Amino acid sequence: MPLFTDLARSLPATVPFVGPEALERRMGVKFRARLGANESVFGPSPQVVEAMALAAGDSWAYGDPEQYELKQAIAAHHGIGMENVAVGEGIDGLLGHLVHLATDPGDTVVTSFGAYPTFNYHVAGHGARLDFVPYRGDDHEDPEALIERARALRPKLVYFANPDNPTGSWHDAATVERLIDAIPEETILVLDEAYADLAPEGSLPKIALMRPNLLRFRTFSKAYGMAGVRVAYVVGEPASVTQFDKVRNHFGVSRIAQAGALAALADQAYLAEAIKKIARAREELSAIARRAGLTPLASATNFVAIDCGGDGTYARTLLSAILQRGVFIRMPGVAPLDRMIRVSVGRPEDLALFEDALIGAIDEVGRPER
Amino acid sequence: MPLFTDLARSLPATVPFVGPEALERRMGVKFRARLGANESVFGPSPQVVEAMALAAGDSWAYGDPEQYELKQAIAAHHGIGMENVAVGEGIDGLLGHLVHLATDPGDTVVTSFGAYPTFNYHVAGHGARLDFVPYRGDDHEDPEALIERARALRPKLVYFANPDNPTGSWHDAATVERLIDAIPEETILVLDEAYADLAPEGSLPKIALMRPNLLRFRTFSKAYGMAGVRVAYVVGEPASVTQFDKVRNHFGVSRIAQAGALAALADQAYLAEAIKKIARAREELSAIARRAGLTPLASATNFVAIDCGGDGTYARTLLSAILQRGVFIRMPGVAPLDRMIRVSVGRPEDLALFEDALIGAIDEVGRPER
Repeated sequence: MPLFTDLARSLPATVPFVGPEALERRMGVKFRARLGANESVFGPSPQVVEAMALAAGDSWAYGDPEQYELKQAIAAHHGIGMENVAVGEGIDGLLGHLVHLATDPGDTVVTSFGAYPTFNYHVAGHGARLDFVPYRGDDHEDPEALIERARALRPKLVYFANPDNPTGSWHDAATVERLIDAIPEETILVLDEAYADLAPEGSLPKIALMRPNLLRFRTFSKAYGMAGVRVAYVVGEPASVTQFDKVRNHFGVSRIAQAGALAALADQAYLAEAIKKIARAREELSAIARRAGLTPLASATNFVAIDCGGDGTYARTLLSAILQRGVFIRMPGVAPLDRMIRVSVGRPEDLALFEDALIGAIDEVGRPER
Repeated sequence: MPLFTDLARSLPATVPFVGPEALERRMGVKFRARLGANESVFGPSPQVVEAMALAAGDSWAYGDPEQYELKQAIAAHHGIGMENVAVGEGIDGLLGHLVHLATDPGDTVVTSFGAYPTFNYHVAGHGARLDFVPYRGDDHEDPEALIERARALRPKLVYFANPDNPTGSWHDAATVERLIDAIPEETILVLDEAYADLAPEGSLPKIALMRPNLLRFRTFSKAYGMAGVRVAYVVGEPASVTQFDKVRNHFGVSRIAQAGALAALADQAYLAEAIKKIARAREELSAIARRAGLTPLASATNFVAIDCGGDGTYARTLLSAILQRGVFIRMPGVAPLDRMIRVSVGRPEDLALFEDALIGAIDEVGRPER
């Protein structure tokens, strides 16, 4: 008799994302710029850092398992009720809990081919079956195709990110609302809005738009610059949101994380400034791509996907040469998105390092064959 | 068609532990002493606080998902290999992953009646079936009964804590080794050693003692004083330890937590001092109980279980009167252990507050009927 379940034994021990630290160890390089994980090198507000440093001294005590003050502040920020909010250890942690709560082994889940791998990892980890629709030809997720597939398969979950990772693309609010309305009512729409704070006006449905089968995921990891802290939340109707209480790690959101997120919400001026810096850096990054003869995609996030003009093999070769030059970036894993590299925004000095590495890499590996 | 699984809908949305913050909100009191959650009010090393405050400034970046340096340091600390170590968001988080990996719905899991509720919560959350053996008459977990039940039921998991929570009792290493050897080889022994750093000499099997079906859980929450930080680890054979990589939240151990745990391991002098303080406070706490005419149990942890001499109803009444006096403590949930209250150690001023509250509470509610 085996010690672990058939499902556990069938899963690979690979991780959805290899960290830059692991790449440094394996490649024997030291990254001078860290632009691969869609972190915000502009960092969190100084008030967040101060609040977390202060909370470090109180960390002998467990954090509030109800995250009462934080939920209250999130609710006030959005003008919704506390009962509409569940807090977790990053969107990744919340997605794991949702898959646990909503799927039995063999159930079907629909996403876009090439969309967020960690969602797929959790689906696989619970033995549910992934079904994919392709991205549209314009490198956007395809809401119409998702609706059609959802109506055909009646899946437990449909994943949709707006703005999208890894392409940076976005849809307008009316399109997202059409998706929300058209999804079968026995299917939960997993609306990943990690990049919501960076989304152009008119691209987000009102946060007050709620449905029993709609869960919206927001995070402090991106625009708020707190990726390493691990705090995110899900917004939805109370009957759905309360499900998370049944399986979550109750003390999992650390005392420091709760203090940091509270301070982050309180400093909206810093957030506004960070959003401007990110937008400027996105323009500069796009200009760098164009100067190198590559095609940047329009982005509503803190990264730019750059079409390298060849196939996946070419982009992987170019990526490798850029990594070797001490600049950490990533790329989408599957075709046709894997003709791109994906570069997070950075300070001018980070982007200069990237430009040098990109030019040097193109010199080394050449242009793609046409 | 329901949105969530039959299992999810069958689960209560209650939490294994209500936090002191929630009690304060519900009762309208402000606790002056926080002695209910087996935290270490002596806190972490100042070097840990400093390392975490420093890491707060770097928290725009995800922590290393491989936790390489921390695993290396843990391995060096114990003289084992990195491949023997998995790190997670507290023992609670690791227990959740283990239940996910090792049980299918309907599988059997054995524990002691009244042992750690969060383990039971995860078992229920994955649809496995809990089977209990009683504590021994001397308020120790009963290894012989666990062996007998495991041989009869061939469960997926057997839970055993040494030292034990909520009683504070412990077994010697030879007894634990007998349990390890006698457990069926298709059953994983979940050896919860959260209080290992506080265990008397001779009560822990050598850490190098490994079996494919043995997983040992250690934490920075107790003697290291870092409960609010959320970092713990599991030690075992590589084939078992590596399973955690298949379902864990890869970026879930925050950058600050990794930095803090590294600093904690590096300051063993502080740990030794904290252990001495805890031992002294445990003696004082026991003396307080005796002065009040109650019976403290011997403890190898950072808390003392105090037999109030009556039944569960009496202890609950006494507990409530103590809480009303602004001192947060807890008690075991089920008989016969629920004749006790459980008080974490504290500084002299915390213990003085407890003594006042205890005396006042006994004055108010009286002595139990005999």
